[in-house]
Amino acid sequence: MTEGFADAEYDARVAAAQARMAEEGLGALLLTDAADFRYFSGFLTAFWESPCRPWFLVVPAEGAPVAVVPTIGAPVVARCRVGEVRDWDAPAGDGIGLLADTLRELAGGAPVGLPAGPGTKVRMPLADLDRLRAAWGLALGDDRGIVAALRAVKSPAEIDRIAAACTIAGRAFDRVGEVAAAGVSLTEVFRGFQRLLLEEGADGVPYLAGGAGPHGYADVISPAAAVPLQLGDVLMLDTGAVSGGYFCDFDRNFAVGAVASHLHDVHARLVEAAQAGLAAARPGARACDVCAAMARELGGFDGGRLGHGLGFQLTEGLSLMPGDETVLRPGMVVTLEPVTGVTRGRIMVHEEVIAITEDAPRALSPLAGPRMPEI
Amino acid sequence: MTEGFADAEYDARVAAAQARMAEEGLGALLLTDAADFRYFSGFLTAFWESPCRPWFLVVPAEGAPVAVVPTIGAPVVARCRVGEVRDWDAPAGDGIGLLADTLRELAGGAPVGLPAGPGTKVRMPLADLDRLRAAWGLALGDDRGIVAALRAVKSPAEIDRIAAACTIAGRAFDRVGEVAAAGVSLTEVFRGFQRLLLEEGADGVPYLAGGAGPHGYADVISPAAAVPLQLGDVLMLDTGAVSGGYFCDFDRNFAVGAVASHLHDVHARLVEAAQAGLAAARPGARACDVCAAMARELGGFDGGRLGHGLGFQLTEGLSLMPGDETVLRPGMVVTLEPVTGVTRGRIMVHEEVIAITEDAPRALSPLAGPRMPEI
Repeated sequence: MTEGFADAEYDARVAAAQARMAEEGLGALLLTDAADFRYFSGFLTAFWESPCRPWFLVVPAEGAPVAVVPTIGAPVVARCRVGEVRDWDAPAGDGIGLLADTLRELAGGAPVGLPAGPGTKVRMPLADLDRLRAAWGLALGDDRGIVAALRAVKSPAEIDRIAAACTIAGRAFDRVGEVAAAGVSLTEVFRGFQRLLLEEGADGVPYLAGGAGPHGYADVISPAAAVPLQLGDVLMLDTGAVSGGYFCDFDRNFAVGAVASHLHDVHARLVEAAQAGLAAARPGARACDVCAAMARELGGFDGGRLGHGLGFQLTEGLSLMPGDETVLRPGMVVTLEPVTGVTRGRIMVHEEVIAITEDAPRALSPLAGPRMPEI
Repeated sequence: MTEGFADAEYDARVAAAQARMAEEGLGALLLTDAADFRYFSGFLTAFWESPCRPWFLVVPAEGAPVAVVPTIGAPVVARCRVGEVRDWDAPAGDGIGLLADTLRELAGGAPVGLPAGPGTKVRMPLADLDRLRAAWGLALGDDRGIVAALRAVKSPAEIDRIAAACTIAGRAFDRVGEVAAAGVSLTEVFRGFQRLLLEEGADGVPYLAGGAGPHGYADVISPAAAVPLQLGDVLMLDTGAVSGGYFCDFDRNFAVGAVASHLHDVHARLVEAAQAGLAAARPGARACDVCAAMARELGGFDGGRLGHGLGFQLTEGLSLMPGDETVLRPGMVVTLEPVTGVTRGRIMVHEEVIAITEDAPRALSPLAGPRMPEI
């Protein structure tokens, strides 16, 4: 496979899925999204960026997965951990007839499960999905959360890759002073920080967010502005860099020159909140318990969430928020992401990455100290 | 808006959509995917990388679009070209009730159209989509291709951005010798080329593909191998770099030292095929006609496609292939992507980007000469 894990990694995942499918009476799983396709097959490619071709993986109740893919990808998928590859000439054809035949053959009339819960999408045209259901009479429903539950618990090999991505980003964060200073625009800082991530060994940088301002930042989702950093600003950079197909996701705050001391205090409180989350993140605790531990340090919970699962995707699985009662298990990888208001309309955010173990969690990101580094 | 075009750009798009919606009897459009949301609102953000939150834009039959989005994004979306923002606390809630109420109010019982054709996806959980249809009784069907047809014809401002992305990539391609040479692994070349793209002004590099070998490359979808380039190899790099939210998509082939002269001949034939495509790409010609013109230079058509539309997405809209009878119109942006076999299991690919005009097309990528540059 193009991902590079041992065959046994994928075989164990398929076996675990099939055990759960039997309990739920599912005849097959239909996987359409990049992360789910890769999880059971090892097929890692940037080609998902091209939306015109769907890619399908069918996990039957017994036996190896069957890939139903465009001809252009068939030789590469055939080297992955799949039992069989069926291909069609795309985009001339849509592959739906071939997929329908495969599902009928492998599911034998039993329901077909698709990941359908929070954070999922069906990566195929709606018209094709509707045709599969109507014209072919296939019972396509949700997978009862089987795939999400499996993916949430990472193997040691997966955790090593996430740790590697975090280590790369940590080295890049140590060098932010090379690309950011008063007078440099945030646009240029974003470009420069991506270059640092690549120099330190990232394969790519699908996600970079950030903000800057004298009292924190207004939001963390706007693109970088062409506004120069000023002395006294707090600069935050938050990266989802990828190594070996796995994301890191953490941020760092920096003081641009000397900043008001209360900003260091806010930062120290965020770091304390992350430490409280770290202390609470033991097996058996629930996601909401970790959230509560962090919220106590922050003076309350203010909506959104204070962290999430990560792995193949920048965010996946559980959310650290009051309503999420997911029980933490060894192998889960979680971000701790406390946020607090600084002044009206201005916030600061801090984020770390940890892996749940049998004992104390393992920090995958190099934990930040209370005082922001000055650049 | 975060994208930076004039308001009139978005107002014209909404008006054009509403004219078509009236013809088709649609009460509203429901947009869930990043590109479609941005097309009508100007909302540009990297936050789509986080799959846990859906974002909805509703274009009513009359009046301005209404955004239904997570609270975290509401202030930023409110600065975009939308008439109203309705928000909910995500990921605690799924927003489906709010969306359903909005659709019922704005569509008034008429069908709601979603982009549902080739290359589209519905970016929301299947369980939520099924609930919208079942519990709320909403008639959610396809948008009759309205959004795809509008997006296919770019405005001058859009073409300028695609041209800017192509110019950036062209400068980076001119510097490939700085990061690629015999002895350097393809993995390192990929990292180095991304750094060059950023140095030349790209905002990000969501897509990079390539291959290398003494007789061309086996495929263009595998991730970079940790195998060093060797003297006599052909190296191909194909990039989707982004500037201002728009993609380029073209490639370059390089000779690693001196390569066999027949490889230069193959390259020259690919360049001739692209030129034949360029000559054929006049308004009124069909996508299949451009494909046929290129295929003649290549000794026939061998499946797949020989180019595609691009813009917000690495590939979008038409395909240069025999069955695609889309008529070219001024403002369409198309890649010309001839491919040919070199020896058994080895191919070479060449790609350029052009914009259709009233007259001869405008080359947006700096057209390659027949002989591969030597590095």
